[in-house]
Amino acid sequence: MPVFTADQLREIGSRIFEAAGASREEAEIVANHLVTANLYGHDSHGVLRIRQYVRLIRTMRGEDDHIHMNSPGIRPRAQLTVLRETVTTAALDANWGFGQVMARRAMEMAVEKARAKDIGLASIRNCNHIGRVGEYPEIAAEHEMVGIAMCNGGGEVSPYGSIDPIYGTCPISIAIPTGGRPILLDMATSVVAGGKIALAIANNEEIPLGWIIDSKGHPTSDPYDLGTSRPAFAEKPSKAKGALLPFGSYKGSGIGLFVEIMGGVLAGAGTGEEGRGNGVVMMAIDIGKFSPIEEFKGKVDRLIRMVKSSRKDSGVEEILVAGEPEYKNMERRLREGIYVDDATWRSIKKTAQEFNVSYSS
Amino acid sequence: MPVFTADQLREIGSRIFEAAGASREEAEIVANHLVTANLYGHDSHGVLRIRQYVRLIRTMRGEDDHIHMNSPGIRPRAQLTVLRETVTTAALDANWGFGQVMARRAMEMAVEKARAKDIGLASIRNCNHIGRVGEYPEIAAEHEMVGIAMCNGGGEVSPYGSIDPIYGTCPISIAIPTGGRPILLDMATSVVAGGKIALAIANNEEIPLGWIIDSKGHPTSDPYDLGTSRPAFAEKPSKAKGALLPFGSYKGSGIGLFVEIMGGVLAGAGTGEEGRGNGVVMMAIDIGKFSPIEEFKGKVDRLIRMVKSSRKDSGVEEILVAGEPEYKNMERRLREGIYVDDATWRSIKKTAQEFNVSYSS
Repeated sequence: MPVFTADQLREIGSRIFEAAGASREEAEIVANHLVTANLYGHDSHGVLRIRQYVRLIRTMRGEDDHIHMNSPGIRPRAQLTVLRETVTTAALDANWGFGQVMARRAMEMAVEKARAKDIGLASIRNCNHIGRVGEYPEIAAEHEMVGIAMCNGGGEVSPYGSIDPIYGTCPISIAIPTGGRPILLDMATSVVAGGKIALAIANNEEIPLGWIIDSKGHPTSDPYDLGTSRPAFAEKPSKAKGALLPFGSYKGSGIGLFVEIMGGVLAGAGTGEEGRGNGVVMMAIDIGKFSPIEEFKGKVDRLIRMVKSSRKDSGVEEILVAGEPEYKNMERRLREGIYVDDATWRSIKKTAQEFNVSYSS
Repeated sequence: MPVFTADQLREIGSRIFEAAGASREEAEIVANHLVTANLYGHDSHGVLRIRQYVRLIRTMRGEDDHIHMNSPGIRPRAQLTVLRETVTTAALDANWGFGQVMARRAMEMAVEKARAKDIGLASIRNCNHIGRVGEYPEIAAEHEMVGIAMCNGGGEVSPYGSIDPIYGTCPISIAIPTGGRPILLDMATSVVAGGKIALAIANNEEIPLGWIIDSKGHPTSDPYDLGTSRPAFAEKPSKAKGALLPFGSYKGSGIGLFVEIMGGVLAGAGTGEEGRGNGVVMMAIDIGKFSPIEEFKGKVDRLIRMVKSSRKDSGVEEILVAGEPEYKNMERRLREGIYVDDATWRSIKKTAQEFNVSYSS
């Protein structure tokens, strides 16, 4: 398993995307996004996606047939269209540009609106995979706002009581400023993110029981039983479509339904079989309109200290609040480098070679 | 176990509250709230609370010593104070009036702001128990908006990895308009609401393992091991303080932390030992700024139909989306009447007698 610095991976990723037609700025945003996901430990949203995104660019040009979340592919240099806009809201159309680029712009709009009118809400349709959803609330937190991001996309999760895959994994992410790094909740509303299944396929590993059911509704530990098309990493043929299970029983399934509706209907990406891409909703709330920001941060810091110094459950070494596992991963990976699994590295090398982009391993 | 019509319980509840000093309007709002909670099947938030609220009114007058969530008691006829206000936001102080009355007014303000500026956000501090949180988003849904309500209050839930009770049960409720009754998610971020433990105490019942831990962090089925003061219904003395467990593992605990911060810090009710009453946040979002409302409702209805007609998991009779269990309870209880457990009925009779309020059973 080769190991890289973050800079090396950013460099190769952004060269590949630029060679594939992205602007320099787009290429850097997307490559930086993927490498940050690796740093945070979310390998399922990391450089594993490089080849997938390149194939989607080619699909948009009619040169490939890779489909992801019913998107027609990625159109580099696409512009964001404003469908409806008010002082607090913006309904946006990403015109199938890079999801990460469009999602950042949408959250930046929400932040601008919140700066002017205290709350901002932006939605996006016709949007490709936005990747690690936690990236966007972090932008709001940098501006001393509460940031919330969520999206639907695809139908992989069975609602509570059902065995059919209907909801997307419907991630929701919330960032809250503190005196240090923000609290950062970033979670799929399935037991695990779909990317974790892709990663198990890439690593040729079994998954724990309780993550997915097979096409008949039975528990299974074979990641191929999810049956989603992952040809960029898959070595075996897909099986009939199973489903990811919702987290937290009927409560988690209810939150999944909320996100599915916000992304699929409010943002307008569609739901179920008719869903196309990620339907995205971004919100920013100006904390200072409720509580002076330094007082707010001080009280949040005190709460975090209270939690971290409380009595630990047996077997727990350190109580971690949302975001801390990611920050700890980042510190370690900045120090030790980022290990890239062999299948992913092969897919990156192959893509680099196709574009005559140099790389070192 | 005596059985009543909703009207009978509303009548006796509102007479008691009025006799205890509430205005006619307040008495009706609170009594209606409690009886609706019973109708929906949330008995833990129903008429079980009548005596508790009366004792809190007396506590405020120095005539009793009942404490609930560190509130100084309930002050009938209190006015809502605006601490800060903008076109989209309102930071409010409930001055320890009835929680249900203040929470309704706060959501109504959020709805008015959303009508004017598309999103409204209102927070409340110094607020007594707001009861069934689902009542407030329903107000937004009646106005064809997405409604979101959440609150902290008390420290009963152990964060993931901890065995100390730090977070409140931090309920969150979301209502979404449809062609019929709204989707209504209304959930504690603990495995069960604290009121379910109170109800087990009132009914002298054991609780399932996995709901709470005792003061040493061990699983237990004795509701008294939660150790919260519930003198209005409790027949045995309290035990050392245990904790409710968060729903959905680290994800549910992260959502609990978010709600704890929104209520405890953004709204300003305080957290942990310093928390006082419910810290409340209400949000309303004007759907029409993103998607025409009839189109929105039609698509949500189609998604619900898709979910309800999907293949059922073994042992599932009907797939229910959020709100349906409550609506089914309401239909049944409107037909069959509301059964009130003996301990609760004794506490209501006793309270009615103290105020010379007539009742029939």
